[in-house]
Amino acid sequence: MSMDVTFLGTGAAYPSPTRGASAVVLRCEGECWLFDCGEGTQTQLMKSQLKAGRITKIFITHLHGDHFFGLPGLLCTISLQSGSVVTRQPIEIYGPVGLRDFIWRTMELSHTELVFPYVVHELVPTADQCPVEELKECPHVEEADSPPKGQGRTILLDTEENSYSLVDDEQFVVKAFRLFHRIPSFGFSVVEKKRAGVPPGPAYGKLKNGISVVLDNGVTISPQDVLKKPMVGRKICILGDCCGVVGDGGVKLCFDADLLIHEATLDDSQMDKAREHGHSTPQMAATFAKLCRAKRLVLTHFSQRYKPTALAREGETDGITELKKQAESVLDLQEVTLAEDFMVIGIPIKK
Amino acid sequence: MSMDVTFLGTGAAYPSPTRGASAVVLRCEGECWLFDCGEGTQTQLMKSQLKAGRITKIFITHLHGDHFFGLPGLLCTISLQSGSVVTRQPIEIYGPVGLRDFIWRTMELSHTELVFPYVVHELVPTADQCPVEELKECPHVEEADSPPKGQGRTILLDTEENSYSLVDDEQFVVKAFRLFHRIPSFGFSVVEKKRAGVPPGPAYGKLKNGISVVLDNGVTISPQDVLKKPMVGRKICILGDCCGVVGDGGVKLCFDADLLIHEATLDDSQMDKAREHGHSTPQMAATFAKLCRAKRLVLTHFSQRYKPTALAREGETDGITELKKQAESVLDLQEVTLAEDFMVIGIPIKK
Repeated sequence: MSMDVTFLGTGAAYPSPTRGASAVVLRCEGECWLFDCGEGTQTQLMKSQLKAGRITKIFITHLHGDHFFGLPGLLCTISLQSGSVVTRQPIEIYGPVGLRDFIWRTMELSHTELVFPYVVHELVPTADQCPVEELKECPHVEEADSPPKGQGRTILLDTEENSYSLVDDEQFVVKAFRLFHRIPSFGFSVVEKKRAGVPPGPAYGKLKNGISVVLDNGVTISPQDVLKKPMVGRKICILGDCCGVVGDGGVKLCFDADLLIHEATLDDSQMDKAREHGHSTPQMAATFAKLCRAKRLVLTHFSQRYKPTALAREGETDGITELKKQAESVLDLQEVTLAEDFMVIGIPIKK
Repeated sequence: MSMDVTFLGTGAAYPSPTRGASAVVLRCEGECWLFDCGEGTQTQLMKSQLKAGRITKIFITHLHGDHFFGLPGLLCTISLQSGSVVTRQPIEIYGPVGLRDFIWRTMELSHTELVFPYVVHELVPTADQCPVEELKECPHVEEADSPPKGQGRTILLDTEENSYSLVDDEQFVVKAFRLFHRIPSFGFSVVEKKRAGVPPGPAYGKLKNGISVVLDNGVTISPQDVLKKPMVGRKICILGDCCGVVGDGGVKLCFDADLLIHEATLDDSQMDKAREHGHSTPQMAATFAKLCRAKRLVLTHFSQRYKPTALAREGETDGITELKKQAESVLDLQEVTLAEDFMVIGIPIKK
C-alpha cells in the first residue's frame, strides 16, 4: 500500500510566499489525512498533486492561528467542489477543545451549508501542557456549548497510557500525546496495523478465514502463502509546536518511528528565545528523535527568516542549512531532512 | 495627493493560485484601506508593493467566507510584525452585524493578544437585502453579545439618504449602501472632500483661516492663491457581491464615480444562474455603471473558470475577454477594465 507525506506549509507564525502556514498531508492509497490547516492550505493543495476532495480526516495540533485559520475555508471549498449530491462519509476532525464551537459558529456566520457531514472530536488537554497564565485565558473550555452540528467525541487523556485514542480501524491506530507549548499542543502517532501482504477487501477476508483465493490472472493464493509473513506496520509521527513533551506518552508512541516530523522554529543559537515562546531548535528536536530511535527525522515549522535552500543566498547567516547540521550533530550524522513546501516523502513498505 | 487601487484578489468563491479571494486596497498617501479580506489576503499583500502595517481601515462587504476568512490571520500578522510597543491608532473595521463577535471569539480561541487596538463598527442590514429564507438563518443578529474588545458603533440605515454613514474626517466621507445578494451585502462609496491644493496640516489650517504661509523655499502663499480654486474630490465606489441594489442609495452614492468596482461572476450567457446565486454578469454591472454615469468601470470577482488574460488560451470558450466585450457593449464601447491580481489603477487628481 503506497504511503507518502506531502508538506503544504513549512513556515512558522504566518504564511508567506516562500513558506505556507503549517499543513502536512499523509496519503495512503489516495486517501488523504491533513495535519494542521493554516491559512492558505486550500491554495497550497491546489498547487500540489493532491486533491482536497480526498481528505477524510483532519488533525489539528493546537489552536494558534497559523495551524487552523485555513480550516473553515478548506471545508467550504471542498463542499463547493463536491457537486450537489454527496454520499461521502463524514470528515472526521480531531483537535483541542474549542475547535468544534469555532467551526460551527464560522459556518453559521458565513451561511455555509456544507454538502457533506463532519464531526469534530475534541481532545481535552491537561493543565501542565502550557504556562499557567495561558491556561486561565481559555474561556472556551468551560463555556463550550453543544452546537447541533459537528458533534463528536470528547476525548480525555488515558492516564495509564499517557495518550489519547483517536482512531482504531482495520488499517490504522492513531493516538495523540501531550506537548508543552504556549498553549496546549498535541502530537499524533499513526501506526499501520500488522497484516498480510494483501490489501483489505473480499480476498483478504477469505484468506483470513482460511479460504484460498483465485486471482484474476489465474494464480491461486492459499492462506499460508501470505498470512504467515505479516507485514510490519509503518509508523509516522507528527508533532505540533512544542518545547518538549509532557509525560512519557510521546516517547512511547514515537518509539521506532519510520518518520518523525518535528518543529524547529529557530536555530540552536536562539534556544532560550525558542523555549520562551514554547518552540524547539534542531538540537531539541534531534534529542527527542534520538530518544525515540526514530529512523528518519524531518524538521519543519521554520521561522520565515529561513528561506528554502534554493532561495537562500550563500553565506547568509540565517541559512537554513545550519539547522540541518545542528540536528545531525546530535544524531551522529544520521541524515536529517529539512521540509520545504510541496516536498513529498515516500514511506516504503517494510520487509 | 496620490491615490491608487490595488487588486489583491479577483476570484469568486475561493482563492486559487491564479485569482486570490476578494481583497482590494485603496491607498492614499501611503495609508491603506482594505476592502474585503478573503483567505490568503496577507500573503497576497506580501507579494504586492503594499505593506500590511499601513492598513488603517478595513471594510467587509458581506459575510461569505471568500470575503472575510483572511481577517483573523491578517490581524495576527500585522500584530506580530508591529514589534512590542505600538502607539498606532486603532484599526477601524466596518462590516455586517456578526463580524465583531467573530473576530473577538477567534482572537480569544487562538490566544491572540493584538499589540494594537481595533474597533469593529457593525452595519445592520435590512430584511430586503436577501431572500427571506436566508435571513432566518442568521442567529448572530439577535444573539450578538458585547465582547469587551473591539466595541464600535452599531450603524443603522439612514432611511432618508438610503445609506450608512461610516467615516467623515478631514479628507474623506465614506458611506455604505445596500445590495441584494444571497446574504446581506454592502457597497462603499469613498469621496474625497473638496479642498485647496494644499495637503492637510498646519499650513492648510492657517490658509483656511486667512493667514499667509511662507514655504521652506521662501515662497509666500496667500489664502486666495489656493483656496479660490478648490480641488474637485475624487470618488471611488466598491461594491460587494450582488445581483442588484436595494433602494436608491447605490445610484446616488455612486453617481459620477471616478472609479466603480463591480462584480461580474459569470458571463451574460449565464445571467439566470448568476441571479439565482445573487451575482452579476458584465451586462448587469455595466447597466448599473451607466445609470451612475461612472467614468470608469472595473469588473472583478470572476468565477475561477475565467483565467487571467495572460493565462487564457486563445479561442477558449470561457475566455475572460468575452466579459469585457459584454460590458463595453452596454457602455457604448467606453473601455471597461478587467481586474487581475496585483493590478494597480492610479486615480489622478481632478482639475
